Amino acid sequence: MTGMRMANDKRLVLVSGRAHPALAREVADELGIDLLPVTAYDFANSEIYVRFEESVRGADVFTLQSHADPINTWLMEQLIMVDAAKRASAKRITAVAPYYPYARQDKKHKGREPISARLVADLFRTAGADRIMSVDLHAAQSQGFFDGPVDHLWAMPTLVEYVRGRIDVGSAVVVSPDAGRIKVAEQWGNRLGGVPLAFVHKTRDLTRPNQATANRVVGDVSGRTAVIVDDLIDTAGTICGAVRIVLEAGAKDVIVAATHGVLSDPATQRLRESGLRELVVTDTLPIGPEKRFPAMTVLPIAPVLARAIDEVFEDGSVTSLFDGAY
Amino acid sequence: MTGMRMANDKRLVLVSGRAHPALAREVADELGIDLLPVTAYDFANSEIYVRFEESVRGADVFTLQSHADPINTWLMEQLIMVDAAKRASAKRITAVAPYYPYARQDKKHKGREPISARLVADLFRTAGADRIMSVDLHAAQSQGFFDGPVDHLWAMPTLVEYVRGRIDVGSAVVVSPDAGRIKVAEQWGNRLGGVPLAFVHKTRDLTRPNQATANRVVGDVSGRTAVIVDDLIDTAGTICGAVRIVLEAGAKDVIVAATHGVLSDPATQRLRESGLRELVVTDTLPIGPEKRFPAMTVLPIAPVLARAIDEVFEDGSVTSLFDGAY
Amino acid sequence: MTGMRMANDKRLVLVSGRAHPALAREVADELGIDLLPVTAYDFANSEIYVRFEESVRGADVFTLQSHADPINTWLMEQLIMVDAAKRASAKRITAVAPYYPYARQDKKHKGREPISARLVADLFRTAGADRIMSVDLHAAQSQGFFDGPVDHLWAMPTLVEYVRGRIDVGSAVVVSPDAGRIKVAEQWGNRLGGVPLAFVHKTRDLTRPNQATANRVVGDVSGRTAVIVDDLIDTAGTICGAVRIVLEAGAKDVIVAATHGVLSDPATQRLRESGLRELVVTDTLPIGPEKRFPAMTVLPIAPVLARAIDEVFEDGSVTSLFDGAY
Amino acid sequence: MTGMRMANDKRLVLVSGRAHPALAREVADELGIDLLPVTAYDFANSEIYVRFEESVRGADVFTLQSHADPINTWLMEQLIMVDAAKRASAKRITAVAPYYPYARQDKKHKGREPISARLVADLFRTAGADRIMSVDLHAAQSQGFFDGPVDHLWAMPTLVEYVRGRIDVGSAVVVSPDAGRIKVAEQWGNRLGGVPLAFVHKTRDLTRPNQATANRVVGDVSGRTAVIVDDLIDTAGTICGAVRIVLEAGAKDVIVAATHGVLSDPATQRLRESGLRELVVTDTLPIGPEKRFPAMTVLPIAPVLARAIDEVFEDGSVTSLFDGAY
Amino acid sequence: MTGMRMANDKRLVLVSGRAHPALAREVADELGIDLLPVTAYDFANSEIYVRFEESVRGADVFTLQSHADPINTWLMEQLIMVDAAKRASAKRITAVAPYYPYARQDKKHKGREPISARLVADLFRTAGADRIMSVDLHAAQSQGFFDGPVDHLWAMPTLVEYVRGRIDVGSAVVVSPDAGRIKVAEQWGNRLGGVPLAFVHKTRDLTRPNQATANRVVGDVSGRTAVIVDDLIDTAGTICGAVRIVLEAGAKDVIVAATHGVLSDPATQRLRESGLRELVVTDTLPIGPEKRFPAMTVLPIAPVLARAIDEVFEDGSVTSLFDGAY
Amino acid sequence: MTGMRMANDKRLVLVSGRAHPALAREVADELGIDLLPVTAYDFANSEIYVRFEESVRGADVFTLQSHADPINTWLMEQLIMVDAAKRASAKRITAVAPYYPYARQDKKHKGREPISARLVADLFRTAGADRIMSVDLHAAQSQGFFDGPVDHLWAMPTLVEYVRGRIDVGSAVVVSPDAGRIKVAEQWGNRLGGVPLAFVHKTRDLTRPNQATANRVVGDVSGRTAVIVDDLIDTAGTICGAVRIVLEAGAKDVIVAATHGVLSDPATQRLRESGLRELVVTDTLPIGPEKRFPAMTVLPIAPVLARAIDEVFEDGSVTSLFDGAY
Repeated sequence: MTGMRMANDKRLVLVSGRAHPALAREVADELGIDLLPVTAYDFANSEIYVRFEESVRGADVFTLQSHADPINTWLMEQLIMVDAAKRASAKRITAVAPYYPYARQDKKHKGREPISARLVADLFRTAGADRIMSVDLHAAQSQGFFDGPVDHLWAMPTLVEYVRGRIDVGSAVVVSPDAGRIKVAEQWGNRLGGVPLAFVHKTRDLTRPNQATANRVVGDVSGRTAVIVDDLIDTAGTICGAVRIVLEAGAKDVIVAATHGVLSDPATQRLRESGLRELVVTDTLPIGPEKRFPAMTVLPIAPVLARAIDEVFEDGSVTSLFDGAY
Repeated sequence: MTGMRMANDKRLVLVSGRAHPALAREVADELGIDLLPVTAYDFANSEIYVRFEESVRGADVFTLQSHADPINTWLMEQLIMVDAAKRASAKRITAVAPYYPYARQDKKHKGREPISARLVADLFRTAGADRIMSVDLHAAQSQGFFDGPVDHLWAMPTLVEYVRGRIDVGSAVVVSPDAGRIKVAEQWGNRLGGVPLAFVHKTRDLTRPNQATANRVVGDVSGRTAVIVDDLIDTAGTICGAVRIVLEAGAKDVIVAATHGVLSDPATQRLRESGLRELVVTDTLPIGPEKRFPAMTVLPIAPVLARAIDEVFEDGSVTSLFDGAY
Repeated sequence: MTGMRMANDKRLVLVSGRAHPALAREVADELGIDLLPVTAYDFANSEIYVRFEESVRGADVFTLQSHADPINTWLMEQLIMVDAAKRASAKRITAVAPYYPYARQDKKHKGREPISARLVADLFRTAGADRIMSVDLHAAQSQGFFDGPVDHLWAMPTLVEYVRGRIDVGSAVVVSPDAGRIKVAEQWGNRLGGVPLAFVHKTRDLTRPNQATANRVVGDVSGRTAVIVDDLIDTAGTICGAVRIVLEAGAKDVIVAATHGVLSDPATQRLRESGLRELVVTDTLPIGPEKRFPAMTVLPIAPVLARAIDEVFEDGSVTSLFDGAY
Repeated sequence: MTGMRMANDKRLVLVSGRAHPALAREVADELGIDLLPVTAYDFANSEIYVRFEESVRGADVFTLQSHADPINTWLMEQLIMVDAAKRASAKRITAVAPYYPYARQDKKHKGREPISARLVADLFRTAGADRIMSVDLHAAQSQGFFDGPVDHLWAMPTLVEYVRGRIDVGSAVVVSPDAGRIKVAEQWGNRLGGVPLAFVHKTRDLTRPNQATANRVVGDVSGRTAVIVDDLIDTAGTICGAVRIVLEAGAKDVIVAATHGVLSDPATQRLRESGLRELVVTDTLPIGPEKRFPAMTVLPIAPVLARAIDEVFEDGSVTSLFDGAY
Repeated sequence: MTGMRMANDKRLVLVSGRAHPALAREVADELGIDLLPVTAYDFANSEIYVRFEESVRGADVFTLQSHADPINTWLMEQLIMVDAAKRASAKRITAVAPYYPYARQDKKHKGREPISARLVADLFRTAGADRIMSVDLHAAQSQGFFDGPVDHLWAMPTLVEYVRGRIDVGSAVVVSPDAGRIKVAEQWGNRLGGVPLAFVHKTRDLTRPNQATANRVVGDVSGRTAVIVDDLIDTAGTICGAVRIVLEAGAKDVIVAATHGVLSDPATQRLRESGLRELVVTDTLPIGPEKRFPAMTVLPIAPVLARAIDEVFEDGSVTSLFDGAY
Repeated sequence: MTGMRMANDKRLVLVSGRAHPALAREVADELGIDLLPVTAYDFANSEIYVRFEESVRGADVFTLQSHADPINTWLMEQLIMVDAAKRASAKRITAVAPYYPYARQDKKHKGREPISARLVADLFRTAGADRIMSVDLHAAQSQGFFDGPVDHLWAMPTLVEYVRGRIDVGSAVVVSPDAGRIKVAEQWGNRLGGVPLAFVHKTRDLTRPNQATANRVVGDVSGRTAVIVDDLIDTAGTICGAVRIVLEAGAKDVIVAATHGVLSDPATQRLRESGLRELVVTDTLPIGPEKRFPAMTVLPIAPVLARAIDEVFEDGSVTSLFDGAY
């Protein structure tokens, strides 16, 4: 036939934004590759400049960004990187966002609010992302916000395995810090082999609107090691309230576990003073020394990301990484 | 200026699919209008034919369909009606789906599943719907599946007001039939003025995978009237299990309340024999005489739909119908 | 260069809906592969659940569905399968619909009708189909409804070859059952080597609107074997009317040939009693034993589908399968 | 409420390309308005420049173009006008194309052909057209090529009324010049009150491929006035062949009627010498004096266009203009 | 006809982001309306929350944001506001960005760069903006980045009128600070009535790549008042270099005029010490007291914005505000 | 795994429109391949027919067209070719347009104009082009008009190298023919090693609007070889005016260099009589013998196109062809 033919191999490229360079390096190390060199800086008026220093033509490009504060800057940087990759003829672009930005704004709580988590999905799409990869979405429904494949990775198995070694499963209880997260607690309970559940219930007094007036533990925690679980810890107000209530209700001690350590001020101070035995998070977000304290354990998320990226690149199965569960 | 000018008034049109004609008539009555006449029938091979018998040019068209079994037929009928309205030059098209089809498939539970609730949103969009109106979505996140305005109506206030008159609030408890619906229960508790919560917990024994081995009530129901709440009741297996467990745990009696009475076989038999005092649902879906039994109360949803349609048409505020909450 | 490289091979995957499993198995056998295992069932309220039991990541996925009654169910099942494949990172998705659903609603016959055949093309696109494959579209123009490649396969050569062996071409006449299908008849005439044409003309009496008052054969059928041809046979009313008129006009005998045996009730009874010598169709749609009768011949369509799928997968030429014609 | 309110009237604007200014003036006269002044000319390298000399902000803009030779120039001019209207904040834009460009390329006759009629629909959409208005499409299916409303107008009633006054209906026959247009002939027959049909059949001899070897009339024309009908006449080869065959078959005389008088060379000469009694077309395309001859009658299309534009603007019913038929 | 009719008036709504509240209030005052009340704040992790406190259903919503540092935050806030307006059923949404964010990244200077100005246009579109309004775009071509109407307003006439009163036009020269902005200088020259031009030329020595080695004035400035013009002043390095060169070349004195006073550090210090007589900018961006100095004049942009918004709302002509020029 | 696997090689295909067959052949020769055979002709009414005579299934298709007069015809032909390639299952389609059609209409000069260069980008996209390749765009911003990769090639290095050999760089001056093209002149100056700049300034007398009243050279040309540069030469009015002014200002002699030789009448006559020493252009557009004259040098563009196509096909780097500059 007319024209010319040649073998068609494929190339994986990993580029990183500036939010969490250590994570990017660890993922690259796990994959056994170098990060593609990128020039990125801010102009004087805070506009961002990005350029890839090497061709990405025809490549399977994974752009990794960690959506820490200042989150809008890092989001825009990732969008600009995706645009640059698209215009540089990348074959496929995956936006890797271990912590999905605006994950909590996944619905309208009141009229005339945005649904920013959907907006973010559309922004990624518009910039040119073909796929999204993220870890432990606040609501699994957010996968449906993107019009394309979402690789939804789980840090929970990593966390569960670690916590299992720190407790006596037979005398533990998994506690959800509020009514909305019990489903996560239930998954923990099942993975730990049938550990019972409890949750902290905020009772609202309707004569004093918009004010949580009394928290109670629903379920039995007395004499047990309470494992309080959540997907993320931001200012830690709710979590630390739960630690206190659970201890007051007679728990023996408390471990707090969450995937995303957002840890906005004054989270660290609150957690350190809360009475918990141990806090376990992953490093989907950068956790500087000023945010750390002795009882905090930070598990690396790079192995999970690297294995998933490799499966995606090689047309393997991401599902298989998590035993078919999703 | 060149050309011609004229006043630009607007016209509301309501058309209905064939799934639940009584509901359509009630909504039209509430609005004080007639339904637009439609020809709709099935061809011999089950393909659907639709034609509007009156012009909808320039109109604000609301297409109402109730997504009962056979749900794919009624969904396709509504899509075809939307397409016909688009091609007939309707100015704006709202797909009114009181029960949102495939609402429960709003996320991937396992790898390689679809997200059918998102797909449905896209199908409506593709057919030509500018807006969606629905009642008590299974997950509020589903609003974010549609790229446009979603009027998310609430039947819950209607249900709460009814139930409030049937119980002694002081000795009641709101019960979620499983861990995933506690958020709804919490809203009920708050609306009833601070009623305590409980939920039924399915403990899985990991040595016998995929099998719920023991249900327990977490929270205190003893001596109380239990109000078991959910967004929908399909085969009623989970709900009736919850009724039994709650009664075994010492509840005085049980009221079950849900927005959508799907009531697939053998729901009615199960519910009738479950020991509940009263079942309260709305008629977002048609509930034929064969599905009814003495302890069932069906509240009309037409007033809520009609008021919302009127607010949308008149550029008022749907939010205001629900006291700012959403 | 940065990153990693590897060879990029490709994988063909065939998945099937539940409408016509025998056809899917035959196509897989022709290709020498197994069908990808799929879990598919209906929930109690008739919503469909689908899951692929094996990874389709990076694969060239062909989803095969036969659009028989209940056609909206099977269409929705195929859309859901396409959505699942898209979200599971399939590389390319072809919707194989041997009988294109809603093929006859390809234009507005009157104002305010839908164009459902275009809608179906858009629904496939929205769900994630990159390509469509179909057999003998009712109107070839429908190819233009899809914004992408359509592989339009022909069963006609298969039918012609079979019929050629059953008639004396020198004393045959090809008959269109109405004015709208003469183009198909002309193609038959040419393929049979110059056989003359005739058609049945419905004369409408304008004083009695919407009523066909007299059918006549235009063209000469006397003493000839009439081959009445159409793309599909639904209730067979038009076809059986044509058989009768043609026999009354002196035809020696009649063979009826059509690609798609929809055969909705009472087609089989009508055809059996019509006086035809033989009915020839293909199995693009399932034809159960209750629809069959001795004078019916069902030709297998699987070889045509399998060869086309193979050409598509291997970047060969589908056009070449049909001698350049299309 | 915050903000400001004012009455919202609407304005119809008619702008015209340069292909057929007389038609635009007639439509404007029928509507009782002036054409919006437009600057339009070609740059030296044949690029087109367009500017509206008056604001179209918020207007309901109808852009009228007649797609005569050089058709690509006029198509591009209309696309540019639509783009200018979009960027000038027109509220709604209708592309009025009485003769739809590339109407005959509405399907793939062979593999690797374009479907240019679909492409044209997409180009209009992309430029910014919300709606299309056209007259007597070559295939009604082409309506489905556009993702939005298409006002498909009929010149046929105008032509039929004229021809009815020129023939004795009782001794007429409607003739299709080939097998593909019999549907149109059937509509004529019905509108004329039940006039019989015939068609000219090109028999191909398969031993001499791609060559029409013999034309025959199928149906009875002897002693009758033959009305040969088609949607358009281009070089008139097929039509004039049909005139000859029909006269040879004994027709008393022949009237040829078609909506679109494309009349590319040598159409006029052929038609003048063909032996027809009268040719009837409309002026959807400009017909210069050099194309005319005494037996040609040109009916004005402006009244049909103007009435349809007025119904569209006033949210009336275009369907009603054609007695519900479409 | 079926349904109900009512008059269709329209409502203008103005909402503002948090970047430049004074400008928003001035625009509202010019329009004689109140700003729509908005709740907007940052969550602890810097995610933005927005809610409209009043219905915008059916309204013509203008969202005003000033894209100062931190520009990504203000851009994201505006996108979120647009999303909220879309989901709250606004009829039409205009993104008013007096200084267009990322305006200078309007092309690829080198391979593998993004085109961030196009990306921004797409982000606005995706969020739901139907229209964009901006002032003095860096390159007029950027209008073409948005797929819809862009109201491109001019501050230049305002600046020219002011400067005209500060100079002797007969002995002035308009100077472009580099070769790329001469077009703007030429427009100034023409508007001032034929004032001559000059520009500062950076000569690059190719043996020392990427280094500007010598700046020269091309054109005659000796003894004249030099008006150095640009669209924006960021760090003022180029501008202050131009002031120095021009004075060295014998200019009598220098006025610097620009639309957008970005004034990133150390712009104010540089300008104050540059030797210019006067700096004239508008307040499209907020200019805090710390950025001001005695020789700086800030002209209000609110009147231009308000008049344009009013023309857009009332379907008048924005073009007419600028004498047909654009 | 289920299904079948095979190696996935890739195939480059080059197809050409009819505008400039010599260029296509030269590009094919440089690549060492044959052009894919195409049937293309005009129907009698000037509609274009295109068909590929060989399969392009799965191929990387480059469609080359030269946008000479009649430009709308050649643009439409290319769009139709792209549509045909899309529908024939090409894997990737690049529209190669060495001279980008409507490149100069890249912004609105006045209100209510189109932005035709953006429209053209959208038309390519809609037809199915994944990528665009062009040479020396009139404004680099036009790259941002296309939502995808644009390979922006440079003929300037080729032209500069040629001109360097024809002048004494030490006594040359690069001249822009008007204020808008100085940026191009500056690039020439830098590439030639620091040659000084000048430009021709059209002074408008505002008392005589819309009339250029006096042209002057800004900058020093006396005794120097002036190299007047532009991206394209159309009717050559501006260029020849510049030649005259520059010679009047004392230039020793003049070389004119431009990428695109549009050369519409009366360009050749004007240029021949202008007094220039040499005109240098490339053959991005066909330059027939009637347009040529002895002082004209036409450099071949095929080597640049062929190298770029090869880099694109092989996933190399187009940027590297131009030393990182773009």
